[in-house]
Amino acid sequence: MQNFNYSIPTKVAFGEGTLENLPKFVKEYGKKVLIVYGGGSIKRTGLYDKVVALLKENDIAYEELSGVEPNPRVTTVEKGVAICREKGIDVVLPIGGGSTIDCAKGIAAAYYYDGPAWDIVLNNSLVTNALPIITILTLAATGSEMDYFAVISNEEEKEKLDINSDLIYPKYSILDPTLTYSVPAYQTASGTADMMSHIFEVYFNGVKDTFFQDRIMEALLKTCIKYGPIAVKEPDNYDARANLMWTSSWAINGFIACGKSGAWPCHAIEHQLSAYYDVTHGHGLAIITPYVMKYTLNDKTVDMYVTYGINVFGIDPSLDRYEIANQAIEKTTQVFRDMGLKLTLRDIGITDKTYFEEMAVKAARGCEGSFVELTKDDIVEIFNQAF
Amino acid sequence: MQNFNYSIPTKVAFGEGTLENLPKFVKEYGKKVLIVYGGGSIKRTGLYDKVVALLKENDIAYEELSGVEPNPRVTTVEKGVAICREKGIDVVLPIGGGSTIDCAKGIAAAYYYDGPAWDIVLNNSLVTNALPIITILTLAATGSEMDYFAVISNEEEKEKLDINSDLIYPKYSILDPTLTYSVPAYQTASGTADMMSHIFEVYFNGVKDTFFQDRIMEALLKTCIKYGPIAVKEPDNYDARANLMWTSSWAINGFIACGKSGAWPCHAIEHQLSAYYDVTHGHGLAIITPYVMKYTLNDKTVDMYVTYGINVFGIDPSLDRYEIANQAIEKTTQVFRDMGLKLTLRDIGITDKTYFEEMAVKAARGCEGSFVELTKDDIVEIFNQAF
Repeated sequence: MQNFNYSIPTKVAFGEGTLENLPKFVKEYGKKVLIVYGGGSIKRTGLYDKVVALLKENDIAYEELSGVEPNPRVTTVEKGVAICREKGIDVVLPIGGGSTIDCAKGIAAAYYYDGPAWDIVLNNSLVTNALPIITILTLAATGSEMDYFAVISNEEEKEKLDINSDLIYPKYSILDPTLTYSVPAYQTASGTADMMSHIFEVYFNGVKDTFFQDRIMEALLKTCIKYGPIAVKEPDNYDARANLMWTSSWAINGFIACGKSGAWPCHAIEHQLSAYYDVTHGHGLAIITPYVMKYTLNDKTVDMYVTYGINVFGIDPSLDRYEIANQAIEKTTQVFRDMGLKLTLRDIGITDKTYFEEMAVKAARGCEGSFVELTKDDIVEIFNQAF
Repeated sequence: MQNFNYSIPTKVAFGEGTLENLPKFVKEYGKKVLIVYGGGSIKRTGLYDKVVALLKENDIAYEELSGVEPNPRVTTVEKGVAICREKGIDVVLPIGGGSTIDCAKGIAAAYYYDGPAWDIVLNNSLVTNALPIITILTLAATGSEMDYFAVISNEEEKEKLDINSDLIYPKYSILDPTLTYSVPAYQTASGTADMMSHIFEVYFNGVKDTFFQDRIMEALLKTCIKYGPIAVKEPDNYDARANLMWTSSWAINGFIACGKSGAWPCHAIEHQLSAYYDVTHGHGLAIITPYVMKYTLNDKTVDMYVTYGINVFGIDPSLDRYEIANQAIEKTTQVFRDMGLKLTLRDIGITDKTYFEEMAVKAARGCEGSFVELTKDDIVEIFNQAF
């Protein structure tokens, strides 16, 4: 186990009806909020009205920033900062999934920086303070509700980079599983695949003697595997939504990575699919992950896959090691299939291999330090196999 | 899953050598500390000298309170408060296990109360502020390094009660597994049994649909079961000490109980053994727990024990349900036996049953609301079986 620092200061109110805590949480930090949201699904579901009513009843003033993009842009962050400065906002209140929360984190941090917001993305040490953030989560996937990351895009520069700062942990996150009932099957499936990938990237890893962490990750994986397919089929199954929601936070809030380190190869490879073909991130991960598993299965890694197969899927430990590993990979694919995800590149409309080389060059940079070395040629081969 | 609030603000520096962070942590909160410790083992191991040297090098002044009892007394808390007030202490720095940390928490909270310290124990709402606490853990067991409880005893009143306040979470805890190398085999075994019991009390519980939490608890139990016996036999096995240390914090920092609730019957029963016969708490739990499991095994509970047996010990799921449950209980006993613990009351020197009735009356109060109803007569029978 490697040495580590642990710190997750976000407070969570979890469960049906916990939205009622919002005024109390806000009042701890001020009396004027900026509501941040995306395309307006929160208006269709009635959540927006509920929040606004709660704020009004409690004499909390609000402004709003809508239209946050699925990959939140730095220009949107700057719009939010301008509102905060002009209107004297005390608290940033994102309502939505990871993109909305990331945008709010960007706003909260850029508020205190006297210059273009992109500067703090390029140089996180310029983040010296942040407005308090309170999140209302409506999509379980990215874990942004309980972590210190925000991914911000710059259209002009064609860049998508992280803000990474202890100062942007949400102060409070309200996690009401019923607020995810309206998430469509495809987004539920992609979100679950995203969570699973967050865990896989830490689980399949060269750091030794992390028994505690490995067993915890198996617990999280089992939860995804059990409840992902249920939530896809029964969108208003409370237990499925609750177990998935809590898992999404713990899959990437830093806890499981305490004592481990290493690259995230599947993410590095998938990012190219999203960038070149606009593939939904979680779906891209569901396609790529089993092929990365198969490609990296060798005498050095087989025991990792065996442990996974036995502990997560309950595969008979008396079988041949490669048999267990291959069954584990097949069962992983089956989980994604059970959630209705298409599992080849061709099936999602990628009909030629034109960019595979170019994408692989970029992906290879992100794979440096991963548990199995993956060169550009390896990644081209993975794309070919997944074609 | 029940609704819950989650909040664990303590920051942890984990790993060999992390003591070097101490001056940085202290300086965040002030420049004068009260070192709190117990019987002086930290002087024998050299830890005391290291801490003092670090403080001196960094111009941090210190006072000290030694001799904290295994069950810290309110009179000792008051001694600490007096020093803090007289000497202008900024930070309370316990070095030790749960008793020492609990005492420090009592001091930190009573510092701001203008009256007898016992008042705040009797009425936790009187805790309105607390001095910052930074802990250096030397014994993995109670989880006090990452929770908001302190158990304080009052000799005069013959009472042992909790302070329970968000304000007494340690700000930082330094968890260096090598600092537990000197913990004797018996204390290691008892500490591991204590951790396991913290998990069992939440795991065997009537709340439904806590898949996430149940799988996490199985992860923690597996870690105890693997590494407890190793740490007993190889006291300086880093991986064993590290995995146990991190497990001790997570077994009782509140995380696993999020979404669950209920009484802690084994603790309620064991507390009487400690009170009447001065049995080491963790050892008492190791004796009592398997008998409580056996006694509560019935058609309503068998599936819980079956799940435990299959998921934690890998028992063949095709066996008869009661066979699995009984094997699981026997394997639990075996873990305690493997750590060298004696497992009947007679074996630890309790040679008559004089107090069983009296103890059972008291224990029954603490069992109210547990997953199986346990009356006074049930508890007498459990004592008899464990005799």
